[in-house]
This record gives sequence, C-alpha cells and structure tokens, in this order.
Amino acid sequence: MREVLLSTGDRVVLYDTSGPYTDPEVETDVRAGIAKLREPWIAARPRRTGSQDTQLSFARRGEITAEMEFIALREGVPVEKVRDEVAAGRAVIPANVRHPEIEPMVIGEAFLVKVNANIGNSAVTSSIEQEVEKMVWATRWGADTIMDLSTGRDIHQTREWILRNSPVPVGTVPIYQALEKVGGKVQDLSWEVYRDTVLEQCEQGVDYMTVHAGVRRDYVPLTARRKTGIVSRGGSILAAWMIAHGRENFLYDHFGELTAILREYDVTYSLGDGLRPGSIYDANDEAQLAELKTLGELGRIAREQDVQVMIEGPGHVPMHKIRENVELQKQLCDDAPFYTLGPLTTDIAPGYDHITSAIGAAMIGWYGTAMLCYVTPKEHLGLPDLEDVKQGMIAYKIAAHAADLAKGHPGAQAWDDALSDARFEFRWEDQFNLALDPQTARSFHDETLPAEPAKQAHFCSMCGPHFCSMRITHELRRMNDAEDAAGVVG
Amino acid sequence: MREVLLSTGDRVVLYDTSGPYTDPEVETDVRAGIAKLREPWIAARPRRTGSQDTQLSFARRGEITAEMEFIALREGVPVEKVRDEVAAGRAVIPANVRHPEIEPMVIGEAFLVKVNANIGNSAVTSSIEQEVEKMVWATRWGADTIMDLSTGRDIHQTREWILRNSPVPVGTVPIYQALEKVGGKVQDLSWEVYRDTVLEQCEQGVDYMTVHAGVRRDYVPLTARRKTGIVSRGGSILAAWMIAHGRENFLYDHFGELTAILREYDVTYSLGDGLRPGSIYDANDEAQLAELKTLGELGRIAREQDVQVMIEGPGHVPMHKIRENVELQKQLCDDAPFYTLGPLTTDIAPGYDHITSAIGAAMIGWYGTAMLCYVTPKEHLGLPDLEDVKQGMIAYKIAAHAADLAKGHPGAQAWDDALSDARFEFRWEDQFNLALDPQTARSFHDETLPAEPAKQAHFCSMCGPHFCSMRITHELRRMNDAEDAAGVVG
Repeated sequence: MREVLLSTGDRVVLYDTSGPYTDPEVETDVRAGIAKLREPWIAARPRRTGSQDTQLSFARRGEITAEMEFIALREGVPVEKVRDEVAAGRAVIPANVRHPEIEPMVIGEAFLVKVNANIGNSAVTSSIEQEVEKMVWATRWGADTIMDLSTGRDIHQTREWILRNSPVPVGTVPIYQALEKVGGKVQDLSWEVYRDTVLEQCEQGVDYMTVHAGVRRDYVPLTARRKTGIVSRGGSILAAWMIAHGRENFLYDHFGELTAILREYDVTYSLGDGLRPGSIYDANDEAQLAELKTLGELGRIAREQDVQVMIEGPGHVPMHKIRENVELQKQLCDDAPFYTLGPLTTDIAPGYDHITSAIGAAMIGWYGTAMLCYVTPKEHLGLPDLEDVKQGMIAYKIAAHAADLAKGHPGAQAWDDALSDARFEFRWEDQFNLALDPQTARSFHDETLPAEPAKQAHFCSMCGPHFCSMRITHELRRMNDAEDAAGVVG
Repeated sequence: MREVLLSTGDRVVLYDTSGPYTDPEVETDVRAGIAKLREPWIAARPRRTGSQDTQLSFARRGEITAEMEFIALREGVPVEKVRDEVAAGRAVIPANVRHPEIEPMVIGEAFLVKVNANIGNSAVTSSIEQEVEKMVWATRWGADTIMDLSTGRDIHQTREWILRNSPVPVGTVPIYQALEKVGGKVQDLSWEVYRDTVLEQCEQGVDYMTVHAGVRRDYVPLTARRKTGIVSRGGSILAAWMIAHGRENFLYDHFGELTAILREYDVTYSLGDGLRPGSIYDANDEAQLAELKTLGELGRIAREQDVQVMIEGPGHVPMHKIRENVELQKQLCDDAPFYTLGPLTTDIAPGYDHITSAIGAAMIGWYGTAMLCYVTPKEHLGLPDLEDVKQGMIAYKIAAHAADLAKGHPGAQAWDDALSDARFEFRWEDQFNLALDPQTARSFHDETLPAEPAKQAHFCSMCGPHFCSMRITHELRRMNDAEDAAGVVG
C-alpha cells in the first residue's frame, strides 16, 4: 500500500503493486532477487505428498491462510470474505508454492478489478534485461500480475530472472515454450513435451498458466467463415496440430493429468480462449461460445481437484455485445473469475488500441470481469517499449478504477473525492500527488504556469485569473454566507 | 467525403470534415477565407423580413433545403429522414445564414455521432494565428464543429478569422465576450450588453451559441453541499450576477427576446448546463436535474418560434449513472439532441482525461447522445496545444465510432470490416490508410520492421515469423480445403 500525505495533514491510502521497487528504504539487486515474503508461510504449512493443499482446498475446509490475511488487509475487506469467495470458485489467489517472492493478491468480481501487463521478447526483437526492466516498470504503474509471453531463445532464463524479481504473480502460456522445444514444428508437439514444459515452469514458480484445452477439434470448422479466423497464437497452434494429426486437442484429452500437476504447486488455471474473435465482425460468434461452454466444463473438473480456475475472454467486441459476453461466461462457467483482453470496441484505430480497448475494458469490468489484460498503443503493429507499457498501464488503471467506482467498491470513491477536494481548494501539489501519473500532471500544469507561486494560485492557465469558475464559486459561497448571516436570502 | 483506394482496387468512402484543407487541388489563403459553398443556396431563398425561415421552419412545412440534401449524401441516408428528424426537433442543422463557408452537417441521435473541439485563447496564453491553426488542425482530425471559447483581447477579430476559414459550424459562449465588454466585472453585466454581443456574433456568422438560461436563482443554493460547486464558467458568472443583484437570471427573463434574435439568423441554441457536476461525487445531483428540467421548458419555447435547440450535458459521471442521465434528458427535453462534455468516468487521472472521458463519451453516445464535446489530455491543467488537440480528437473519434457501431448505424461496420480484412490479408499499406491516424500506425510498425519488404510480410514484430496466428490460420484453411477436396474431413 502507498500512503499519500496531503498538505492538509490528511493521509490517503492507495493500493500499490510495485513491491520493494518504490520503497526508498529497500535496495534491490536483480541478481539476488527480491525478499521471499511468503517463505515462512509456506514452510509453516504441513506438506502432504500426493495431495498438496491449495488456497482452494484450505478455503473449502474453512481455513484462513497467511495469503488471505495479507489480501484482506490490502483490499480492506474481512478475511472471511476472501476465504469464502475463493472457496466458491468466484475468486482465485495465484500463488505457486515455488514463488515465495510475491505479495499475494486476489482476482474475483467481489474485489478490486485487476490489470495484467503482458511482456515477453519475440524472435524479432527485445532482450532479457529489457524484459526484467519492463516487469519492474509495469508494476511501477500498477500491474497486478504480469504474463511472460516470451517466444525467442533463452525463455527459461528470462523467466527465471522475472520470477525472482517479481512482487506480483507471473503467468505464462506453456505451449509457446513447448513449441520452441520441437524447433517450431507444430506437428512435432506432443502431450509429453508439453507436460515436461509445464513441470519445468511449475518448478520455477509460475503462478498461473494459460491452457487452451477448450479448442476442440469440432470447433475449428466454425471459424471458417470468420473475417479474421483464429487470432490466438495458442489456439492457432493447437488447431494446426489437430488438423495435422487428425486427432482431438491433446490438452483436452490429458486435462485430468495436467490438473494433477498444477495441484501439486497450487498453480492457477487460466483457461485460454483460443477461439476469441479478432475483429468486431467476429464477436460473440458460434466458435467463441462453443469454446466458452467447454471452458466451463473444464473449470468444474479442475475445481473438483481443488485447482483454482480463471476463464479468459475476448478480444474485439462492440459495446452492445459486451454485457452478453459477461453474462454467458458467468452462466456457463459457474461465476469463475473472468479475465479479458480489452475488449477493443472498434478496429479502426491501430496505434490507439489502448483507448479503443480501455472503453471496452471499463465496461466489462463494471459488468463483472475480475481482471483486465492491458493492450498497448503498439497492439497489431509491433512490440511495446517502456513508454507503450506505461501508456497501456495508465489506460487500464483508469478502466479498472472506473469499473470499481461503478460497482460501488468500498474505498474506490474516496480516491476521487480526495482529488476533487484538492482541485476545488486549489491544492495543486495534492492534486499532482493523488494523480495516477503525478509527473505528467505536474509537467502539463507547468508548461504554461511553471513558477512555484502558481502552485498556490487560485486559477490555472485554462481560463486565466479572471474567469475561474471554481474561484467564483468560492466567492459566491462567501457572499451567500454573508447574506445568510444578514438574513437576506433563505 | 474521403475515398480510400485499397491495393485490391476496392474503394472505401469515409466521412470527412476537413473541407478544402485536405484537398490537394484547392489552395487556401487564410486572409481571403475559404469558398462560400452555401452562398447561392441562401441567396436563392426568399427572405421574409421579421420572420426569417430556419431549417426547422422549412422542415416543418415539409420543404427540403440544399443543406438537407448535402447532409443526406454525406450521412448516406434518405433526405426525408434528415428533414423529418429536424422537423421533430430530434436533430439540428447549425447553419447561420451569415456563415456560407460551412459544409452543412446534422446533429441528432438518428445520425452519426459528432465530435466538437473547443479552441480559444485565454488571458494567460495563446495567439490568434495559433487559434486559426488549431481550428484547421482539429477538422483535419475529424472535428464536426468547433467552439471558439476565447476570453482574452481581440475576441472579435479571432472569431472573424476562424469563421471565414472554417468548413465546420462554429459555436460560442456569448457571455464570455459580454463580460469582456464590462471589464470583467460580473455585477456590470446586463441584458443589454449581452443582447448586443449576441447580435454582433449573429452578424459575424456564429452557428450555435451556448446560453446558460437554465441557471435559475433558486437552483444556486442547491450547489452548496457539492464537492466542487459550480464548474461551468458561464454558470458561475450568472450565479454571481444573480447574487450580486438579488434578481433572476437575465437570460431566463429575456429568453423570448433572445430567441427572436437567433431566429433571424437561424442560429441554433445550445442550452448550457451551467450547473453540470465537476466531480464524480456531484454527478446527477438535484442542482443538475433541476436545471435540466428548465432546459426542457426553454427548448419548447424556442422550437415554438422555429429556433433549433440542443441541450448540453455533463461533465463528470461514473459509468453506472450515465444511462440515467441520457434517459432523463430525453424525457425532460423532448428528445432534443444531447451534447455532452465527456463525461469523465473518474477524477483520478489528470493528464489523461481524454481517456477517462472517452470511456464515458462512447457509452453516452451509444445511449443516444448526438454530439460529444472532446476533452484533451490538458483538461484541468492547462490550455491544449496542437498535439493535445490531436490526442483529444483521436480519442473522441474512437468514442463516436464505437457508439455508431453499437447503435448499428448503417455503414459504420463497413469501416471496421475493411480494416480487419486488410489486417487478415497482411495488406499493411491498406491497414495504415484506413486507420484513424495513418501516420502513427505506419511509424509504430516501422519502429521494429522499417524495411519496405516488411510491408508485404505475412507477420509483424509482435510475434515474429514463426508464431503468427493469422498466418497459421491461412495455412490451416488451405489444409482444410485440401482435406475437403480429398473427402477426409466433413
């Protein structure tokens, strides 16, 4: 948590995900990794071979874990609520027992809307140091989880550095690394290669994994009349594998076995939407909804084994089809947390898809989505750099907070009220410090009124000194008070 | 209109507001002004002294004007629909008979959602040349109307230059200039000074005017318990005047007289929301709704005299209160076109209010708002420069188009489809040319893959050559086709 001290002496407490990196009293060394907050908690729990406890199994037995206590504090809710939502499968706590570095967090409709930032190198560009820097940068701007989507060489080492330095849960899509292992030849993929990759990643400490087990063989022909076919990388890889082999998706066939592995580490499923729409035209079509129904069935199988489950969602959806998407997900997937990419509400603005999708993200968050996967301005065009990561994060923190406000989350309104009070009382420094991006707010103000006295001025450059409506309102209230005292006005 | 020629030989026609400035065959000279498209149309109409016809009176008599013909073409709708919506008061055509330079446009729920850009110097900064340049720049990025909100010296001359060079309707807030005329002393304002200012602006060619006639004396105390009081400049000026004089708002008292003046020039009312909320906390409160009811009454009086009317709206509104706002406006104001500022859906992101408000703007547009007043990143902090104007416009064109899509406006989907087709077929140049901002899309792509061959490449730097899901989909469809031909797969 972060405390903002105002010039009035009041303090505003804000949720913070940046871990030790913004704590002036902590020095971090990326080679050593950050402190292992959860190590004593995990060590204190009895480990039962062959039937590892998970946050879900503890919750179902009515037990409260240290992770739940931590979460209740940062969300400002009773710990019983955290436990009960997890027990019901309506919330998840992604926290691999091999990832002690994280500050635990919860993903569920009953809690603050969360934001995930995707990072990861590709075959074309990017380096390991850049990716670790991106992770720290993304959490600096409020990322609640990050996904490492690396596809190039050194996947294992990149992930190791990220995990050992990440204060937030880390997700992956194991099929990417599995495909690397078979030299990029889709037909050479197999359950065995995939399973070994998942085991490797579980051992390293990955907290949640996107698994495209719902892309069934029968659904692939449903995408034939689409405008943009299959746009999920995982979905297209599995579709190509099924056609090459003339067999069912091996992730679907081996789902029980996979679930048993994830259970041993308390890794959370993020059941991937391999058939999500890639254009407004394809939104909410038969292929997407057929897969969603299967994701619901798989979710029930996973929870039976005490493995936590999120469900991934689209993608590209016009505003009038967003609510339907959320309602179907809730109904088909037993209220498991929904985790959506955007959605983009129009296709016409490449270069600005953080905005086309922030609109959809705010709405889908309000309707009940638990976590929003950010979209950067570079979406559809190239790999995001640090500035793109920041722009994507800011747009999504706005969307998530707007959703928290609309949902009436306790505490969300207090932040807006503190900032509006500062604005009305011309406390410029407080306004800057309460802003999502204090540096930018300050620099925009200073472009036209840079001098220090302007920070106490009862106007800004928008209207100038003569026309400030808020200053006039203050004068008006004083006049009113004087009239009231004189009994002139009722 | 703008025609985009694709590499396939197809053409996509897009709505365009930039007038002669983007026509390579037209040279413009700001000193001479642009061509007077409407001059022959206006000259051809009989002018009846004392009872000037307006677009509304023509429409009510079932007559179709040249302006309506022009609009029907650019909206792609039957001209009778334009006439009927105007006749019903559900749409307006802001077109002062003294402003022949404009390309006529319509504002109403049945048509494309429009965007207004505010420009205007202030006492602190900005110059005349800068303001004209901003106007041209704003229409380059799609502004459907612009408002000149100048408050410094040279208001008259600034406006003259803007009017003579603007291909889009121009709106003003006459109380700003009236206040200049009395040396900034609110108590010295009078109906006479205001009336003369309105006449001066009508003669110059202003197409619509914001008039805060709904800020009644009884409503001012309703703002006392607000977090941010009165944030409309016009609203606060009139509130201060009423308190200083202990009398009713002179705009309310002289509304009939004012209407008669506007009728003579076919100037459209934009009935201002002087009591709009300035923070999430104050949204949809008693003060705002009391004023809205009065705006509905004033709208009926104006339309009785054949004067066209829009109603202005907020402001700052959390997502869950936006629909209520639109429904109340429709009900209280007889479906007169709603024209809203944003609304911002949270207060916490100064520096990014084009995004906090694009979310609200898209939603309120979908719910039925006819025109969106843009908000730039500098809102609450300073005056927008050219880059801010562009960022504000892009965010609002996204919001307006997302609303058009959600409303199912005929033709809106075609733009998204054309871009998605280009994306799926790796026609990069077509993607750039169809984008809202072609330059930015191209430069983002070129940052990582600058070479010309990459413009035909069947991948981009996001995933690299091995993992492109869309390329895999193409291969998959070819495999499927081959299997179909061999009778292997049904």
